[in-house]
Amino acid sequence: MSAALQAAPAASSAAPGLACCAPLARQPLSAEDAAALARTLKAVADPARLRLLSLVAAHEGGEACVCDLTEPLGLSQPTVSHHLKVLVEAGLLTRDKRGVWAYYALVPGALDSLAGVLTTC
Amino acid sequence: MSAALQAAPAASSAAPGLACCAPLARQPLSAEDAAALARTLKAVADPARLRLLSLVAAHEGGEACVCDLTEPLGLSQPTVSHHLKVLVEAGLLTRDKRGVWAYYALVPGALDSLAGVLTTC
Repeated sequence: MSAALQAAPAASSAAPGLACCAPLARQPLSAEDAAALARTLKAVADPARLRLLSLVAAHEGGEACVCDLTEPLGLSQPTVSHHLKVLVEAGLLTRDKRGVWAYYALVPGALDSLAGVLTTC
Repeated sequence: MSAALQAAPAASSAAPGLACCAPLARQPLSAEDAAALARTLKAVADPARLRLLSLVAAHEGGEACVCDLTEPLGLSQPTVSHHLKVLVEAGLLTRDKRGVWAYYALVPGALDSLAGVLTTC
């Protein structure tokens, strides 16, 4: 772990690969930090997954189940579940199984950490 | 163009596909906005391109030529030139040909626009 890595307790426990670095414009990213950051950005760089993050965040109570997400996205449930899994594995969404459904919410601070790396000012 | 799109004069002239939207946690992204945003994020979601953005930003005067970038990246000049072209086409870098070299700099506000879409607070 380079000295540029910042501790992000809520995120680091959920997502070892989560974006973690000082703003990239401040000092050159190490190869290791760039690889970790690229992995998280790849999880986000997909239209369906961007819309899922947005739908979950804007949903009542800040959480949503697959049953809330298939219709607005116009995708099948297995496809939506696949995209949700990618976002959970990237440390961007939490998954909480209650009864027959799993409920998804943003990992607090995860998108903001990602934004913080890209911010130049 | 949806009502969620925000004008970003410096960036929009350079990059029609540049991230352009209100924060994704504020309201659900449209399919069109999500596609545009994913295109820009895909340009960034690569370890070599993240390091290039970082090296250019941190370089003296905020600009660098390919000759400054090949050694720290450990990649060949054609490979570095390819990645720089992707970043220029995504509206994240400017390219200014002077003499035998082209000089690259961050498009002012472009990375910050991208960060702004991901920010939740």
